[in-house]
Amino acid sequence: MQPIRLAARAALAVALGLSAGAATAQSAADLAADATTPGDILTYSGSQAQTRHSALDQITTANAKRLVPVWNYSLADTRGQESSPLLMDGVMYVTTHASTVAIDAATGKQVWKTSVDYPAETPRVACCGIVNRGGALFDGKLYRTTLDAHVIALDAKTGAEVWRTKSTEFRDGYSFTVAPLIVDGVVIVGISGGEYGIRGYIEGYDAQSGERLWRTYTVPAPGEPGSETWPSDSDAWKNGGGPAWLTGTYDPDLNTVYWGVGNAASWNAGLRPGDNLYTGSMVAMDPKTGAIKWHYQFTPNDPFDYDGTNELVLTDVTVDGAARKAIVQANRNGFLYVIDRESGKLIAANKFVDRVDWAEGIDLSTGKPNENQLADDARNGKQVTYWPSAFGGKNWSPMAVTPGGTAFINTLNIGMNYKAVEPMYRKGVFYFGAEFSWAWPEGDRGYLRAVDVMTGEVKWQDGTPIPRMGGVLSTDGGVVFTGRMTGEFDAYAAETGEHLWSFQTGSGIVGQPVTWEMDGKQYVTVASGVGAVYALFSGDERLADVPAGGSVWTFALMDE
Amino acid sequence: MQPIRLAARAALAVALGLSAGAATAQSAADLAADATTPGDILTYSGSQAQTRHSALDQITTANAKRLVPVWNYSLADTRGQESSPLLMDGVMYVTTHASTVAIDAATGKQVWKTSVDYPAETPRVACCGIVNRGGALFDGKLYRTTLDAHVIALDAKTGAEVWRTKSTEFRDGYSFTVAPLIVDGVVIVGISGGEYGIRGYIEGYDAQSGERLWRTYTVPAPGEPGSETWPSDSDAWKNGGGPAWLTGTYDPDLNTVYWGVGNAASWNAGLRPGDNLYTGSMVAMDPKTGAIKWHYQFTPNDPFDYDGTNELVLTDVTVDGAARKAIVQANRNGFLYVIDRESGKLIAANKFVDRVDWAEGIDLSTGKPNENQLADDARNGKQVTYWPSAFGGKNWSPMAVTPGGTAFINTLNIGMNYKAVEPMYRKGVFYFGAEFSWAWPEGDRGYLRAVDVMTGEVKWQDGTPIPRMGGVLSTDGGVVFTGRMTGEFDAYAAETGEHLWSFQTGSGIVGQPVTWEMDGKQYVTVASGVGAVYALFSGDERLADVPAGGSVWTFALMDE
Repeated sequence: MQPIRLAARAALAVALGLSAGAATAQSAADLAADATTPGDILTYSGSQAQTRHSALDQITTANAKRLVPVWNYSLADTRGQESSPLLMDGVMYVTTHASTVAIDAATGKQVWKTSVDYPAETPRVACCGIVNRGGALFDGKLYRTTLDAHVIALDAKTGAEVWRTKSTEFRDGYSFTVAPLIVDGVVIVGISGGEYGIRGYIEGYDAQSGERLWRTYTVPAPGEPGSETWPSDSDAWKNGGGPAWLTGTYDPDLNTVYWGVGNAASWNAGLRPGDNLYTGSMVAMDPKTGAIKWHYQFTPNDPFDYDGTNELVLTDVTVDGAARKAIVQANRNGFLYVIDRESGKLIAANKFVDRVDWAEGIDLSTGKPNENQLADDARNGKQVTYWPSAFGGKNWSPMAVTPGGTAFINTLNIGMNYKAVEPMYRKGVFYFGAEFSWAWPEGDRGYLRAVDVMTGEVKWQDGTPIPRMGGVLSTDGGVVFTGRMTGEFDAYAAETGEHLWSFQTGSGIVGQPVTWEMDGKQYVTVASGVGAVYALFSGDERLADVPAGGSVWTFALMDE
Repeated sequence: MQPIRLAARAALAVALGLSAGAATAQSAADLAADATTPGDILTYSGSQAQTRHSALDQITTANAKRLVPVWNYSLADTRGQESSPLLMDGVMYVTTHASTVAIDAATGKQVWKTSVDYPAETPRVACCGIVNRGGALFDGKLYRTTLDAHVIALDAKTGAEVWRTKSTEFRDGYSFTVAPLIVDGVVIVGISGGEYGIRGYIEGYDAQSGERLWRTYTVPAPGEPGSETWPSDSDAWKNGGGPAWLTGTYDPDLNTVYWGVGNAASWNAGLRPGDNLYTGSMVAMDPKTGAIKWHYQFTPNDPFDYDGTNELVLTDVTVDGAARKAIVQANRNGFLYVIDRESGKLIAANKFVDRVDWAEGIDLSTGKPNENQLADDARNGKQVTYWPSAFGGKNWSPMAVTPGGTAFINTLNIGMNYKAVEPMYRKGVFYFGAEFSWAWPEGDRGYLRAVDVMTGEVKWQDGTPIPRMGGVLSTDGGVVFTGRMTGEFDAYAAETGEHLWSFQTGSGIVGQPVTWEMDGKQYVTVASGVGAVYALFSGDERLADVPAGGSVWTFALMDE
């Protein structure tokens, strides 16, 4: 593709009235069918199942070396860029913590930009990166969350604000970084703030009016179901954590939303005896009411900050020759879970990282971990070292899962030195309840791994000194895309792990690649812009040579 | 080129000890020969003659459509990016107002970054853009200027500061944006601040010690040569302007430095009767002493802000069948001057823009303009409209001049409504002495023009609604490169003006392209990052859709 040709095409589109202005309504059915319409990206990651696997196959292992940038768009921001781009009617939508932008997907030129204004002190309540993970499209509007705990709707054509609803008071430690999930006209979001001693929740808003329809707390109040898993003789539940800061998935056939719930707060588990539902869990919910249909807990009475928020990928697996509707999650605790998405019953759970200290495995019959002594030692205030660290075996970085059952995961190879201490709760400040430092490996701190979801078998891996902290995309072309914190955007062969191609973007990549097509041509888009949790907490001095600066990149094959 | 291959090559270079660390000394002879060594760029623009024409010819009109980005490097800055990149031993050096960076030219990765710290109030004295136009390399050091009027030397290997010398007090309205010119171990710089009523100067510093060797004021004090061109009954000379904010050129055979001098201050020329030397002039200087050998004044008693700072390109022209060593300048006042660089005698002067109101032409025998009544009307405080405006027929945007005598110029098509008023001098604040607004044309506000330097004949042009404000590069491949404020980096056929190729960079381009070679491959590098004078003063609302965000781009031909 010659960019100049693209520009001419875009001019034609404008002349024909086909461009920016032509945003049309999207229905709930459109959103559910997102994975099958590669000419648009209406949902976070490109499908409500969040497989991050695309059927597009124009870019192949044979031709990926011909990938070139088509355009770049500066986000005029120096924070980490984790937004999953959206696409509708030829217009791409990207969020940062500070603005929402609409970009002509053919030319890379700005269609509109609307700033997100929040009080100057807001960043103090964002523990792990001043980021936003993207918007959601529905009925001609772009929905997004804000760092100061608002949900807003913008007119997709103009960027004008349609409504803005305050969820809660950010000064109490609450914030939003999540991209909304929209189901049947309900804008579903989950709160951030686990490290500030919040009481977590998931909420649904009316897409038209902005009215809040429901709020489901992830930590039950005394007397509510699950409250028996919290100590009855303390108010631990009030600051019990359980944030829900990554976008859930949705199965339209089962009309069920699946949402991951974060760690309990503080990390000092000895102060909150019990399983501490629904922290370190996933919940299956009714999208219209927020009612919890069932739950599965990954890490009961978690002393390790083993957030359960990671994406819950909906895919079918084969068990004893029969297809099962499943949920796959690579949990921070080091296990790759396969869960029946109708019953909530565990199908498989295997380690996807080399070292998991806290548990020997997960009991398939009970779904409970077989804990090692280390877990109780941690709860009892002993100085321990454990792997994986609080960064997790995988952090937020979303994986791709193929229909064949291979997950491509940016895994972490980092341990933690840890000792629980007495925390003191104060609104809007850190509430760790632990002293900690990182335990670094000799070599690579992370691997891009191809993992069999049913067995945990590692088919291939590619290590990097600084771990990858962004999303992965796989395609029917047999190509896996992901970026590095040092700025390279890479393509690998899905089957073999062969490194096919790389381009050095201006900053580090912690963003999520998406792929799409226009006029029969396949494109790949990813945001570059270093920052977020590893950059903030690792102290990795090698990042000093990675400049800040957010921008959006679109790549395609060079014409022969 | 595949970036992946580049990365491998860079790794090899590191292994062999050939990379960043291997900076070697550069001699005065190396600098003088810069144009003939395309593997490095030691001087501003790539040669002390500033032709911005390269003998590299791998990229041609036939293959330019195969140009692709090779790497991008974020400058983590949202100001305008006008720096002319330097290259030495495989390391590229780029400046911003806020930092100096060294980039591995093969990979785009940062080698080092050194911040430029200046007091927070400094930008108040930078009238027309918080920019820096680049460094200079000599003897293993990188020299640059700072907005708060310092000259500094950094170790090219490490970025560590070697020396820092204060030129003057920035709070009095003085600043530096200029890239130094280094001649025989003398670091030559010119001051900015014409709009703040400074008394301009050009200075030479010892490259080793940072000691100031000389300062030559561009406005003589009473009794000094040229003082007779200022009113004897006022102190107008003390705030007489004459900044010198663009890098001069150097002819080693004549051992002469040529430097442009800016407008007189205030703009109200009626208050300073006389020619007001050396404002609106160029001076020929001895590099060791700063002594003025001769001068040529473009705009005597200038009432129009017709800064004479524009680059003084050294090239040979043919007059009556004989080669003449010449200087070519496209002046803000609308005339393209050809001046004998030995004698200072005018060889030719022709309009290079369509409308020049202030003078009918330039008298070849006297070198003086044949002024129209408009000039005196402006001096006498009448409300006038004149073209070209204070932006000039060409602003700072450096042109390219081919050996054949064609200049590729980013011209402006903008007029001005103007009335002189009584100014009041206060240190460090604007000292215009005029009320003004812009007079806009119906259509394009600027053209990239191919102009015969001897006749002013326009061979071809390409107009843009928002004028181009960056530099131009031409090559023996017959390709002309320049960028747009809307972000496109373009290639044109030098002969025909055919638009060959374009790439949409992340922000607007006001930078200066350079070309270089490594391992037999030709590269083109340019900084993107919108800002500076037009963005600040035009009020052009179309720029609202051009995002800020500086980065460095390197392009090359895609492998077949």
